[in-house]
Amino acid sequence: MRRLLLLVFCLPFMAQAQVNQDSVTIKKMVDEVMTNGKAYDLLRELTKKIGGRLAGSPQQQNAAIWGKRNMDALNPDAVYMQPCKTPNWQRGGKDFAAIVGLNGKPTIQKLEVLALGNSLGSNGLVEADVLAVANFDELEKRKDEVKGKIVYYNSEFDPTLIQTFKAYGASNAYRGIGASRAAKYGAVGVMIHSLSTAPDNAPHTGGMRYDSAYPKIPAVALGPNDAKALYAQAKKGTVRAQMQTYGFFLPDADENNVVAELKGTEHPEEIITIGGHLDSWDVNEGAHDDGAGVVQTMEVLRTMKALNYQPKHTIRFVLFANEENGGKGGAKYAELAKLNKEKHILALESDEGGFTPRSIAITCSPAQFARFQKWNPFLKPYGTEITTGGGGADIGPLTGYDKSIIMSSMIPDSQRYFDLHHAKTDVFENVNKRELLLGAANIAAFVYLVDQYGVNP
Amino acid sequence: MRRLLLLVFCLPFMAQAQVNQDSVTIKKMVDEVMTNGKAYDLLRELTKKIGGRLAGSPQQQNAAIWGKRNMDALNPDAVYMQPCKTPNWQRGGKDFAAIVGLNGKPTIQKLEVLALGNSLGSNGLVEADVLAVANFDELEKRKDEVKGKIVYYNSEFDPTLIQTFKAYGASNAYRGIGASRAAKYGAVGVMIHSLSTAPDNAPHTGGMRYDSAYPKIPAVALGPNDAKALYAQAKKGTVRAQMQTYGFFLPDADENNVVAELKGTEHPEEIITIGGHLDSWDVNEGAHDDGAGVVQTMEVLRTMKALNYQPKHTIRFVLFANEENGGKGGAKYAELAKLNKEKHILALESDEGGFTPRSIAITCSPAQFARFQKWNPFLKPYGTEITTGGGGADIGPLTGYDKSIIMSSMIPDSQRYFDLHHAKTDVFENVNKRELLLGAANIAAFVYLVDQYGVNP
Repeated sequence: MRRLLLLVFCLPFMAQAQVNQDSVTIKKMVDEVMTNGKAYDLLRELTKKIGGRLAGSPQQQNAAIWGKRNMDALNPDAVYMQPCKTPNWQRGGKDFAAIVGLNGKPTIQKLEVLALGNSLGSNGLVEADVLAVANFDELEKRKDEVKGKIVYYNSEFDPTLIQTFKAYGASNAYRGIGASRAAKYGAVGVMIHSLSTAPDNAPHTGGMRYDSAYPKIPAVALGPNDAKALYAQAKKGTVRAQMQTYGFFLPDADENNVVAELKGTEHPEEIITIGGHLDSWDVNEGAHDDGAGVVQTMEVLRTMKALNYQPKHTIRFVLFANEENGGKGGAKYAELAKLNKEKHILALESDEGGFTPRSIAITCSPAQFARFQKWNPFLKPYGTEITTGGGGADIGPLTGYDKSIIMSSMIPDSQRYFDLHHAKTDVFENVNKRELLLGAANIAAFVYLVDQYGVNP
Repeated sequence: MRRLLLLVFCLPFMAQAQVNQDSVTIKKMVDEVMTNGKAYDLLRELTKKIGGRLAGSPQQQNAAIWGKRNMDALNPDAVYMQPCKTPNWQRGGKDFAAIVGLNGKPTIQKLEVLALGNSLGSNGLVEADVLAVANFDELEKRKDEVKGKIVYYNSEFDPTLIQTFKAYGASNAYRGIGASRAAKYGAVGVMIHSLSTAPDNAPHTGGMRYDSAYPKIPAVALGPNDAKALYAQAKKGTVRAQMQTYGFFLPDADENNVVAELKGTEHPEEIITIGGHLDSWDVNEGAHDDGAGVVQTMEVLRTMKALNYQPKHTIRFVLFANEENGGKGGAKYAELAKLNKEKHILALESDEGGFTPRSIAITCSPAQFARFQKWNPFLKPYGTEITTGGGGADIGPLTGYDKSIIMSSMIPDSQRYFDLHHAKTDVFENVNKRELLLGAANIAAFVYLVDQYGVNP
């Protein structure tokens, strides 16, 4: 009761009866998720029965069929596939790297390693001395030393950045464009420190892209412990290393976005989209990335149906086909939105893991943001609040079509995400049921408010 | 720079230069913890080299020696032991329970089970029909059915309580006093649903106490899955069960609180205490409960020494000897404080797990609380804020000596704690390094502010 009074105090722009009703409806939704939620069971199926789901893999085909079947069973107004072409990268073999010389003396130290996604195979064994650099600045300063070398970038996270996505943002250029930056000066291979916070040695893969102006040299991520050891050795002397990778592309694959819809009763032409991506890397189960976002999306649909909620706006629940190594799922969704002249008002993506939810981040005008913030009293009892900076790779392409579409994201606690992101440790066992459900509950609460009150002050 | 300006705006009662200085010092402390923190390595030692540490065990003796040695190595102004007597409960054997009959037909279903701490052995096999009740209310209504039965309490958590400690608070009376409440009406044994949120079947032990007015019947916690299955079966028909436990007490043991001190330069007679408890249950490594609190306490000391911080007040870093099944460590600390006429101004306990820190909870006067809240701008960049309700079993006895001593606690995210609390799953592998360190960093920041500005407005 005190909470309701607080809400009334904080939300003078709403009539008290409506505030009470919203508070009651949101609590019903949250209770339904926390008590009867199926997201955790669905995630077990997706990770254990289907497994890793790189675009082009049979698993990804099966995941789309699984997604459609499970959303069909919830009986929304529509469920359909959106076919799209995706890259079809193959790892092709068991990636290899080793230190084979220290200061001219032979040695053997096998390194834990994964080729970066989209990188091409080494076409046999590459052996060369290592030039280890802290960053691109050092690479540029030492560009005359690069020719014929394997370049190692010490792309370790800054541990003092409390939001780990900031550290990721500062380091991920080395994964994305490090190979071509080094190939430009004649490097024969590239190694990076895995983009990870983990105190272990599991390597983390992830997407890279070549600049077609330079040779497409092989590129790998080292396990964090091995990376630190190599960097320490390279600072003291000459490290000679071998690497062999096998990556190649098959012809583009046929995949599908899976879309479920609840039709709006008052504004059926205005669309709210929520979603996550079905695809994952090949080396894990894609449990947090992004099985969590997929099953949270399905959970919100399940909950709205269970409570017989009939939205004012049309709500789309989208399982995107391809985010990791091409972003083709989100691109197709935006392309069709444009083609069909759809009116989208807001899109929300959950792709930062199924951890305890901390906020709903939103990118919008200052006036809109001030209005969204007034919803904090509805969200804080369940652990979130409105913050700035929403967006995501799957929903982002919508803004290319219409800049007024508001981008938002579920922001969970970020401390554990980069321990397992793109590594073999991203498995079902590392997802906590309550944390996962609580994320879905907060998405449901936020989407309910957007549906009831729209996005404009 | 923008953050500093914000601080100045929010903290008009402090001079700008001082605010800037505090902000810089706190950032230095946090950076030191996140970059060079040893808490995770210490926790690995405590859990893997020493192990579970029930009071009276050789492991607990070794843990105190380990704690003293490691704090000695940090060279504070003093490190000393506070000897205290603790209970010495022994599990005595491998606890057993099974369903052996359903509606009069024999069956065999072994149940995952742990005797509750402090409970006495069954003195042989107990076999009886089960009376399954939802709660004490149902027990009272059905008291005439209790005689000769094994009572099962369905002490499952309410999943809609977002703060899991609230659900724990609502259920833990069944563990604590459920046996004697049932023995009063002639029950021959008690089973409870483990006090857990986990979607698994590991049973959770924990302290209980007998009312000496009634027979001391055996008491066990069932694994969550087994508990739900038993309750469902008992609702449909008659369940017959067996149980056998072995608990007994050895003579009280000699244990030690371990205390390190940094002497205050301006108010050496005014003491700030921070701490966690060294003891754990016997069935796990006591990693979150409360290895985390122990190593966070040591980390704050390490950080203050590393930065050559010389506090104005005396700061005590206390590793309490016995919390789980007797609270004798905290009692001894308070007893000595009274005996030595010490002046304590604030105590902080970290005993809710080493998860991402969410707040510093404080129990104090409204005026003091309003003043503490003004520190939020210093804490929020690192994830915490000031909330109400601080306290803990180890520091609580201090208030029996002096009610003006302010009680505070580190409040981490609570979603995962009761998945592993008092179960075999509370092991080092389930602690995340960054989450653990971030807790220590926030304790350091808060204690710094208390030391600089005291506790009164």
